[in-house]
Amino acid sequence: MTEPIDSAHSSGSPIAPTPEPPYYAVIFTSTRSDGDRGYGQMASRMVQLAREQPGFLGVESARGSDGLGITVSYWQSEEAIARWKAHVDHAQAQALGKRTWYTEYHVRVAKVERAYGHSPGV
Amino acid sequence: MTEPIDSAHSSGSPIAPTPEPPYYAVIFTSTRSDGDRGYGQMASRMVQLAREQPGFLGVESARGSDGLGITVSYWQSEEAIARWKAHVDHAQAQALGKRTWYTEYHVRVAKVERAYGHSPGV
Repeated sequence: MTEPIDSAHSSGSPIAPTPEPPYYAVIFTSTRSDGDRGYGQMASRMVQLAREQPGFLGVESARGSDGLGITVSYWQSEEAIARWKAHVDHAQAQALGKRTWYTEYHVRVAKVERAYGHSPGV
Repeated sequence: MTEPIDSAHSSGSPIAPTPEPPYYAVIFTSTRSDGDRGYGQMASRMVQLAREQPGFLGVESARGSDGLGITVSYWQSEEAIARWKAHVDHAQAQALGKRTWYTEYHVRVAKVERAYGHSPGV
């Protein structure tokens, strides 16, 4: 149930170095069907492709031992999210995901209004 | 690096059965320090306590094998989030988390504007 989604950023931390709000978050939660069936490879490819899209800010991803996966991608605008959703390769991956890889999923599009954190040395 | 956060809902799915938007999401991403040191027990207690708060809608939580944890809690309003942040037991857990359990964390408060999903049989 784990997959090699590379959510590490150039800072070396898996926490996305997003700018000051406002910006947008796409919260994708899912449960997987059994077996990989090409999922790991496609997930890595989609993260790579997302990174190349205009307006992409970062991504964080985790799948726990109970099978629940949470991937949060961050975007500059709703337009950037709409473009990424409609990207032809991504649309194909979404269709495959619905048919093959996910038993259940939920997508929430949210506007990040404030943020704070704690890093080593801060 | 895994912990027994119980994010299962009465539906049996670990995906939170949230209402129609708008509502709020608190996206908490973190990396853990080594060793449990009371973390698992406190995390379970905080999820239990959050469930009892007015305006709480649901929670989803996952920690991957790379150590990145994502917990998203859902709330009816910003006021509900502010009350939960200030809850005395939760404030104590936050202080302990900063001092003991997390090497790094980031909190993002976001307004969920739209949502869609796919469930078995839907």
